[in-house]
Amino acid sequence: MRSVLAVGAHPDDIELGCGGTLAAHRCAGDTVTMLVLTGGQNGPGSCAERRREQERAARVLDAVLIWGRLVDCALAPDAATVTVVENALRSVAADIVYVHAPEDSHQDHRAAATATLAAARHRNRILYYRSPSTTEFNPTMYVDISAHLDRKVEAIACHRTQVAASAMVDPEVVAASARHFGAQARTRYAEAFVPARFVWDLSATHADAPAGSTALVGTLPAW
Amino acid sequence: MRSVLAVGAHPDDIELGCGGTLAAHRCAGDTVTMLVLTGGQNGPGSCAERRREQERAARVLDAVLIWGRLVDCALAPDAATVTVVENALRSVAADIVYVHAPEDSHQDHRAAATATLAAARHRNRILYYRSPSTTEFNPTMYVDISAHLDRKVEAIACHRTQVAASAMVDPEVVAASARHFGAQARTRYAEAFVPARFVWDLSATHADAPAGSTALVGTLPAW
Amino acid sequence: MRSVLAVGAHPDDIELGCGGTLAAHRCAGDTVTMLVLTGGQNGPGSCAERRREQERAARVLDAVLIWGRLVDCALAPDAATVTVVENALRSVAADIVYVHAPEDSHQDHRAAATATLAAARHRNRILYYRSPSTTEFNPTMYVDISAHLDRKVEAIACHRTQVAASAMVDPEVVAASARHFGAQARTRYAEAFVPARFVWDLSATHADAPAGSTALVGTLPAW
Amino acid sequence: MRSVLAVGAHPDDIELGCGGTLAAHRCAGDTVTMLVLTGGQNGPGSCAERRREQERAARVLDAVLIWGRLVDCALAPDAATVTVVENALRSVAADIVYVHAPEDSHQDHRAAATATLAAARHRNRILYYRSPSTTEFNPTMYVDISAHLDRKVEAIACHRTQVAASAMVDPEVVAASARHFGAQARTRYAEAFVPARFVWDLSATHADAPAGSTALVGTLPAW
Amino acid sequence: MRSVLAVGAHPDDIELGCGGTLAAHRCAGDTVTMLVLTGGQNGPGSCAERRREQERAARVLDAVLIWGRLVDCALAPDAATVTVVENALRSVAADIVYVHAPEDSHQDHRAAATATLAAARHRNRILYYRSPSTTEFNPTMYVDISAHLDRKVEAIACHRTQVAASAMVDPEVVAASARHFGAQARTRYAEAFVPARFVWDLSATHADAPAGSTALVGTLPAW
Amino acid sequence: MRSVLAVGAHPDDIELGCGGTLAAHRCAGDTVTMLVLTGGQNGPGSCAERRREQERAARVLDAVLIWGRLVDCALAPDAATVTVVENALRSVAADIVYVHAPEDSHQDHRAAATATLAAARHRNRILYYRSPSTTEFNPTMYVDISAHLDRKVEAIACHRTQVAASAMVDPEVVAASARHFGAQARTRYAEAFVPARFVWDLSATHADAPAGSTALVGTLPAW
Repeated sequence: MRSVLAVGAHPDDIELGCGGTLAAHRCAGDTVTMLVLTGGQNGPGSCAERRREQERAARVLDAVLIWGRLVDCALAPDAATVTVVENALRSVAADIVYVHAPEDSHQDHRAAATATLAAARHRNRILYYRSPSTTEFNPTMYVDISAHLDRKVEAIACHRTQVAASAMVDPEVVAASARHFGAQARTRYAEAFVPARFVWDLSATHADAPAGSTALVGTLPAW
Repeated sequence: MRSVLAVGAHPDDIELGCGGTLAAHRCAGDTVTMLVLTGGQNGPGSCAERRREQERAARVLDAVLIWGRLVDCALAPDAATVTVVENALRSVAADIVYVHAPEDSHQDHRAAATATLAAARHRNRILYYRSPSTTEFNPTMYVDISAHLDRKVEAIACHRTQVAASAMVDPEVVAASARHFGAQARTRYAEAFVPARFVWDLSATHADAPAGSTALVGTLPAW
Repeated sequence: MRSVLAVGAHPDDIELGCGGTLAAHRCAGDTVTMLVLTGGQNGPGSCAERRREQERAARVLDAVLIWGRLVDCALAPDAATVTVVENALRSVAADIVYVHAPEDSHQDHRAAATATLAAARHRNRILYYRSPSTTEFNPTMYVDISAHLDRKVEAIACHRTQVAASAMVDPEVVAASARHFGAQARTRYAEAFVPARFVWDLSATHADAPAGSTALVGTLPAW
Repeated sequence: MRSVLAVGAHPDDIELGCGGTLAAHRCAGDTVTMLVLTGGQNGPGSCAERRREQERAARVLDAVLIWGRLVDCALAPDAATVTVVENALRSVAADIVYVHAPEDSHQDHRAAATATLAAARHRNRILYYRSPSTTEFNPTMYVDISAHLDRKVEAIACHRTQVAASAMVDPEVVAASARHFGAQARTRYAEAFVPARFVWDLSATHADAPAGSTALVGTLPAW
Repeated sequence: MRSVLAVGAHPDDIELGCGGTLAAHRCAGDTVTMLVLTGGQNGPGSCAERRREQERAARVLDAVLIWGRLVDCALAPDAATVTVVENALRSVAADIVYVHAPEDSHQDHRAAATATLAAARHRNRILYYRSPSTTEFNPTMYVDISAHLDRKVEAIACHRTQVAASAMVDPEVVAASARHFGAQARTRYAEAFVPARFVWDLSATHADAPAGSTALVGTLPAW
Repeated sequence: MRSVLAVGAHPDDIELGCGGTLAAHRCAGDTVTMLVLTGGQNGPGSCAERRREQERAARVLDAVLIWGRLVDCALAPDAATVTVVENALRSVAADIVYVHAPEDSHQDHRAAATATLAAARHRNRILYYRSPSTTEFNPTMYVDISAHLDRKVEAIACHRTQVAASAMVDPEVVAASARHFGAQARTRYAEAFVPARFVWDLSATHADAPAGSTALVGTLPAW
């Protein structure tokens, strides 16, 4: 059982970036924690509304929710933000970290990415997710979310103030991008990631595999 | 249990690039097949010697060995080479493919990389490994080979003609690079990879995890 | 009135990559020529079928069709291919050239891209389009095809042998990708391009604009 | 008629980066607004001198001038700067935005680039121009300024305090770079750009083109 | 005789990044100055200890040591930091500048890199060195430190508080990375660099070469 | 005294790419050899004319000239081309190699670059130069050719058939680009390079420097 931490600058960022993957993690028995760094004070929507929306979305994803209590549009990649992420990483003993990709036109997203990379400097699994404001993004890692797209859309729908008023939050685009990346991943629906650093744990995967299973050794005739 | 195919242009390329990872796959119960595209005719070493060395190395790694029967220093990324790799992929029903990184000063390595990428166009796990002649390489994926470095070095040592005569095959450098990439991966010894396309299979990992395990839901007080 | 040349390696490549943009060009009064370099001999579908499908698709896009008469899966970026593209460029006096992006897992697509870049070395508008097999693609130019998506899908549907049998040709993915790139372009549906070299012709745009239109000059009070 | 906004950190930045292109826009009947974010307080030259120089240069380019009233060498990519650019974008209803390329050794230039990208997050035509302090710049878009180089040089010459004292402002280099990029663009003199996001408006170009112009349809004999 | 300035954010950064190269410079008769921007207040180790360690390390490298007197974990790429580096550059009349590579997970390292690039905007030899926290690094320049590795390790060993307590400072990794980069450089041990801007001074190299030495001119028979 | 080998695909390529640098090498007492791989059979100009032009240009640069005897527009990055370059490297015992940058729209230029990189796999100083057909080029190394520009232009002028008939060979552009790159290098005229691999030889530079020259050691008061 792995411990997953997803970091986002504002309410709804995490769901948009990796909501389906978090659902897949829960499905695989992993614990999932969402760290939302700011309250989304700049709106649309009041702080109280956005807090309730984010709580509902976390419930949909069956995830623990932690608030970073920093300020929307004033997030800096400084020691204070690094400390907030470090505390979260430590308190959940995170094995895997998801965060905004660093090339983004929103300054808070860039700050979240760099602060998280600093906080997770000793961790070995950090994946960047995409936001609607991400500018450069060449994904090479994917998670198949064909079984979890509905859950992702449901979690996003919790953020009613955003769906109603932000051009950046459009469920139609969410599905289209998932299909687009799904085709790239040679599956149906996928979320796409750029690994910042990813140590693939082969051994953990097959604890139950027969230890002595022997492959054929020698030279096969070529077809 | 996964089926792994590693593709290399010449005898010893696969061991240098991902020998430790192949050992880790075997250890995890996966089957491993090595496809060596050419006989290494250009030497150092005779074709017969190199064939025997490669067979010994495959035995050390407990892997199936297939020869591509193409010609050293004349490997082309054409339909013939693509077909050889397609046949191997199909015959072992490969889940995971390892091959040379495409930016390499050796023309055969580049050809192996592009032909394999074409052959594996419908597969969803293809990882590029590094060779001593690789020119540009920004790894973001790693496999911890701390428990398998000895096996890797042993497999490379089988290629006596190369260890003796090629400046590119130096066991001391093999260990140094594994430690260098290990530090990057925040572990001890590692092999480094660039994913061409990697779909991370979360669900397969925890077939034995309790299906209904429930995380705490709600807002935690921040530390 | 501009003259547009679109180059593709196989029947259906051009429609997938820039079919909506070609429809937009026709709509703007430009002439459009499609140069299909090979007959798609490797199938699925017979050569005769694919020729008829391509002719139908060209008719849907109201475009001139030229065949390069080269061989599927054996396209090389050599002098012969360069000459075929040079002849087409000259015969239509192309102002704008569309071709495959060079980073692609299909060898024919790479060859088409590099041969076209060589043939068009003195031209000043060359745009790379994306294929399902494109591997790395960071688009920064877009054409809004919201009014032309249906036409694009209709042109692709002409390639029945491909829609039926190739995993790479899926109308659902075509629409999803157009929406995905549309969101990136801050419009509804878009095709995405990477410019190889694009000289933006400002003066041609407003031949009918009043020559002496005068802007306010001076220092405005800042808000 | 399009509305163009050019953003620069200091007096003279815009002229150096895209002065010829702004002249071409005016020539095509577009309105042009220059937003100079700081007063260039750090010199050389006094604030009053630099203000007068900038006003003269705006007059040479027949452009509206707006001052951002921020502080030289203290420009931050924060909410305040973003707001200044947002206000300018809104007040001129900008269709096209020009700004510094983000890879630059001057902190103010980087801040201007990132703040503008944030402010223009919903716009679909943003082009990065080059400064003498730009560090990495791979232009793929160009505007032919052969008819406007003199105007550009004249506008730069207005900044006498800079031409006299700054190693970064040298009319000889301005002409040389325009010729260098002109050769890259396959024209005589050019300014070079990297598109951040550029939606090419095909339909607007030929409002006067004959609506029903019909291209030949069918298969041409190949040359 | 050249004047070399190496800039680092914290005590030990310079030794880790380019300590062997600085030793090689001293060996070649160049003067070497180390500018350590902060006191390493965040530890491990007290400020006083770290100051003594850094002084000892500078003595091992036979280098002048300057303190920037800025604050650990609060380094900003602002005008104040730029001024500190400018003063150092001027006071030693630096011909060559070494500094952190800008892609680094530590905010102080990024700040040191960008402030130094700004301060050295008129200099023509600036090389980026690697730190354990550097994230993306494609070196193409190297200095052979085979004769200086011991000196480098000795200088690093002076930083006892770091060697004892920081996972980032491990002499074994230092040697492994030097061997790894040595193999890339086709030598034994090397430090690796990315040039920000490097003007190679050919003429200075051979003041003692015979002025009129004449090469054979004409067409040689090919081998 | 160093031995320099410059490799070009056609007559005039080397002069355009690094003619000033070769003159600087001669001036510093180095031997310079030019390896022209093909006879430029495709013209403009006859083979005999181009041979004479190249011989004259080599004489202007006081360089040895070797012909590769391969065929224009049919250069392949195969074993034959690699062998031609290997023979030249060996026969002149090259310390430094100059060759086309690999991203180029001309297939022969790409082939020359990759074949040379393969041939020079054990060498430690390989620099890529720019051609008019180079497509992507981010130079970070420069050689000051302010004292050698006239010589470069004179060498290019020897290629009369090219200056007269090829849009790619224009002395005005040669000077403009040298000034453009000179400004980037913070000097007057420069040629620009991308290092493929460059080991900077510090020790060779100052054989005559006083061995025991001692720098001040200790902590300087900060300004």
